[in-house]
Amino acid sequence: MIIVGELINASRKKIREAIEKADVDYIQNIAKEQDKAGADYVDVNAGVFVGEEPEKLVWLVKTVQAVVDKPLALDSPDPKAIEAAMKVHKGTPMLNSISMESERWAKLSPVIANTDIKVVSLCMSDAGMPTTAADRVKIAGDLVAGLTSIKIPMENIYIDPLVQPVGTDYTFGIEFLKAVTQIKEKFQGLHIMCGLSNISFGLPERKFLNRIFMGQAILSGLDGAIIDPLDKAMMGTIAGAVSLVGKDKGCRGYLKAFRGGLVAS
Amino acid sequence: MIIVGELINASRKKIREAIEKADVDYIQNIAKEQDKAGADYVDVNAGVFVGEEPEKLVWLVKTVQAVVDKPLALDSPDPKAIEAAMKVHKGTPMLNSISMESERWAKLSPVIANTDIKVVSLCMSDAGMPTTAADRVKIAGDLVAGLTSIKIPMENIYIDPLVQPVGTDYTFGIEFLKAVTQIKEKFQGLHIMCGLSNISFGLPERKFLNRIFMGQAILSGLDGAIIDPLDKAMMGTIAGAVSLVGKDKGCRGYLKAFRGGLVAS
Repeated sequence: MIIVGELINASRKKIREAIEKADVDYIQNIAKEQDKAGADYVDVNAGVFVGEEPEKLVWLVKTVQAVVDKPLALDSPDPKAIEAAMKVHKGTPMLNSISMESERWAKLSPVIANTDIKVVSLCMSDAGMPTTAADRVKIAGDLVAGLTSIKIPMENIYIDPLVQPVGTDYTFGIEFLKAVTQIKEKFQGLHIMCGLSNISFGLPERKFLNRIFMGQAILSGLDGAIIDPLDKAMMGTIAGAVSLVGKDKGCRGYLKAFRGGLVAS
Repeated sequence: MIIVGELINASRKKIREAIEKADVDYIQNIAKEQDKAGADYVDVNAGVFVGEEPEKLVWLVKTVQAVVDKPLALDSPDPKAIEAAMKVHKGTPMLNSISMESERWAKLSPVIANTDIKVVSLCMSDAGMPTTAADRVKIAGDLVAGLTSIKIPMENIYIDPLVQPVGTDYTFGIEFLKAVTQIKEKFQGLHIMCGLSNISFGLPERKFLNRIFMGQAILSGLDGAIIDPLDKAMMGTIAGAVSLVGKDKGCRGYLKAFRGGLVAS
């Protein structure tokens, strides 16, 4: 499983304030904690700073990479911010995210064409959010066609089928899970990555439900998640789920998670 | 999900002692607790009483059904015990369990032929325990052929694909889960029911792992489980998992589980 640590997001009040004050220590500590907890990528988002997003994102990239030897997920739909951040980023970053919405595609695709960037690709089009598995497979096909046409190889494509709340429509969970399996089968070599917490929107004890859904999504073929890596129970659930679906020889990952205090009855 | 409450099993010391002393209150209390917690069937097992199993099992059936208005799962491989228990059981019981082992099949199949009993049917043959999905599908096919030949209808067949520990071989989890899906697809109308706790044998924090596996098994098609219904976190996990796979309109089952205190972050 590829873990993208989601915490450095300016939509969170403390992060916004830290960016405003250029509080290097605060940002670097959260970056280091996520790194230590097992994040493979550290997400950086400065989306609330309208007009200043490119410089703020560049500052985040430099600030985080000064202390963390991991690639970052550059979290913006703004091509200027992405372009500026890509220039200062060390190593191969991840774009979070492109979609099939015409304007977003038109602006972002030239920025990433012919690069080795990893691309989180939302199953969203001008028709809006998909609700069925078939809708998602269709848009995933459009994304694959578009991305391969600009020389993004399959293994750098991370499709996000977009989780919708099961409290809104009781079929939304299973339609998402079916989409994960079908997209993985139809387009060999790509990855599926997303945030899952939207599944429980509007329901009580969201984290409880999110963990069960993570186990199911991993069985369905999910191989990346944008989450809070400091959530021990979720990280333990991921380790357990990966073990249970035959992707953890000797259960080493699960045993490591247990020793790290991530697993508790 | 069909829940079979597993607690009245003479292999547990306190149950054995209660049966020995004919402690009606003790047995009835555990039966009532499981009933109240949502068991659809109450399992009764007197297997340790060699030579006396029929009379002990009959006593259990009468004792439990005096206070619980639920059918029981008659848990024995002994045809004499099953036959005696079936005679005193009110309503339609469940047999736990038959298998394709020659001796067990030869002795038990005449007892259940042409009845409306529900039949837990282990994917076990003279060749021993299956390890791959293909092994399990093959034995399930033999069970279906055998059971339908003695007039057990598909809807009364509950295949148990037999969980084996992922700590023994890291493929054992996924092979079981694949078997659940494949058996459900190939033999329409039957059910899949089993105990799951064996998955975590030899690993730490077994309940944590068991719950993740339950969520995955329900996604794969499991529709019955032999468990401790007093395990609140497991019962909450089942409710959550059923909601997430599109089998709980309005998330009513999950919300009921939440109100009943089964769900906690």
